[in-house]
Amino acid sequence: MITVQAASDARSACAGWRAGGDTLAFVPTMGALHEGHLSLVRIAHDRCDRVAVSIFVNPRQFGPQEDYLRYPRPLEKDSALLSDAGVDLLFAPPPGEIFPEGFATTISVAGPSQGLCGPFRPGHFDGVSTVCCVLFGIIGPHVSVFGMKDAQQLAVIRRMVRDLGIRMEVVGAPIVREADGLARSSRNRYLNSAERIEATAIHAGLLEAGSLAASGCSDADRLVGAVRTAVSAKPLLRLQYAELVDPDAMTPMPVLDRRGLLATAVFAGTTRLIDNALLEPGRGCVEV
Amino acid sequence: MITVQAASDARSACAGWRAGGDTLAFVPTMGALHEGHLSLVRIAHDRCDRVAVSIFVNPRQFGPQEDYLRYPRPLEKDSALLSDAGVDLLFAPPPGEIFPEGFATTISVAGPSQGLCGPFRPGHFDGVSTVCCVLFGIIGPHVSVFGMKDAQQLAVIRRMVRDLGIRMEVVGAPIVREADGLARSSRNRYLNSAERIEATAIHAGLLEAGSLAASGCSDADRLVGAVRTAVSAKPLLRLQYAELVDPDAMTPMPVLDRRGLLATAVFAGTTRLIDNALLEPGRGCVEV
Repeated sequence: MITVQAASDARSACAGWRAGGDTLAFVPTMGALHEGHLSLVRIAHDRCDRVAVSIFVNPRQFGPQEDYLRYPRPLEKDSALLSDAGVDLLFAPPPGEIFPEGFATTISVAGPSQGLCGPFRPGHFDGVSTVCCVLFGIIGPHVSVFGMKDAQQLAVIRRMVRDLGIRMEVVGAPIVREADGLARSSRNRYLNSAERIEATAIHAGLLEAGSLAASGCSDADRLVGAVRTAVSAKPLLRLQYAELVDPDAMTPMPVLDRRGLLATAVFAGTTRLIDNALLEPGRGCVEV
Repeated sequence: MITVQAASDARSACAGWRAGGDTLAFVPTMGALHEGHLSLVRIAHDRCDRVAVSIFVNPRQFGPQEDYLRYPRPLEKDSALLSDAGVDLLFAPPPGEIFPEGFATTISVAGPSQGLCGPFRPGHFDGVSTVCCVLFGIIGPHVSVFGMKDAQQLAVIRRMVRDLGIRMEVVGAPIVREADGLARSSRNRYLNSAERIEATAIHAGLLEAGSLAASGCSDADRLVGAVRTAVSAKPLLRLQYAELVDPDAMTPMPVLDRRGLLATAVFAGTTRLIDNALLEPGRGCVEV
């Protein structure tokens, strides 16, 4: 595995592979890697000859009250995981390499960024789409792989790639969960043991909504209510939102009359967790 | 000359040339072509094997009170001019081809877009940078050529290309003027004969500022004052702004202590005209 910090080095390594006829898959991350990230790397390997991973804790996608400074940065451990996973290139730039002095460009993707997390994290998706566009420009991948846990992020990136005509396939990967159902997240390490136990109620609520959908319930309020009920039963959890939306446009669906995304954000103590499930009428939870 | 309306056709024609080893220069325009545009095409030919020109009256760069609907669209005449000029590809898409249903992405380039025209044309530069990014994605040029009359636009595009790592050279081309000094513009055709005569005062003011700079004056207020004086002497003209700025950052320069851009916007009747000159201390007006 080659590890580089300079954008120019990442660019020339990737350009070399492309020029040699290799296909290239890219997995952008903020590090603090877990099994979810490693599943993206496996999908990347399945799709392309070469795999590039970036680790960049992107300051532009954190709000002023958020956890940018304390976000975990275990670079040595991450690097070992990626090397073991057969990654070809690790691009781990310092902030000034991506956003140098004088950087002035912001990419906003209005539609899919506006609901769900949007109002609670002003500027977050602008930060995500801007950094991804910069990273795509450096790496020039044929395929980029994003986890479905951040379903809204995936929808925003898909929209941007389509709108700007970036020649790249965007692949969404299934959520990887702990044995008890909690979605893997770098932020799970913030949870104390009591929060960690209660946090399983999020997935339990999504499963309950899935059962309702499987048994014919199509009313969004009732499906969302299953998540509300599961979360509100736990004193350490606080629901920020739960909503049934179109999986691409991220617009509200009052009725589950086609595939819908049931997405939720929940505070466990001070830690904000997100999770979601794809629901199909009469079938319940399905995978991407 | 190949003429296409579909982005996919433009994309595949350009991809074919690149794959064959040809270099490709791109001149984005809104049509209503004049000698200024044709000078860009000549520069494009000098730089690359193939030349692509787009004609697209971009709705996103017009304000609600501006002249989008009445902007001239003499496509047949434009097409003949480009064919005579040896252009390889004319890409003339309908609006829905560039901004299809559901398009949601906006690119904002904060720094250089903020002064000069920025406050008077809210959203204008977002529209310019967004459409250019989309067009660059379709055409994939090695070089793009922009006229220096729209100096702020050029600075915005340069900044965006640098920030997003778009692999392309941005070339600025000297302003082309009428015999009496008026900068060529598609909007000159809006002028009645009295306005057309008075409009020459804009360039005369810039030349006067150049003479002052050549004779050692470096005070921005005095240099700007030359334009103000020339314009205010004409009853049909109304100055919107005149300012000395850094040619890249577009930030105000109180003193001409290095190369500076003296930029102005002037209404002639209801027609808004822009013009500028690059000034050097002790030398006066210079070209890009």
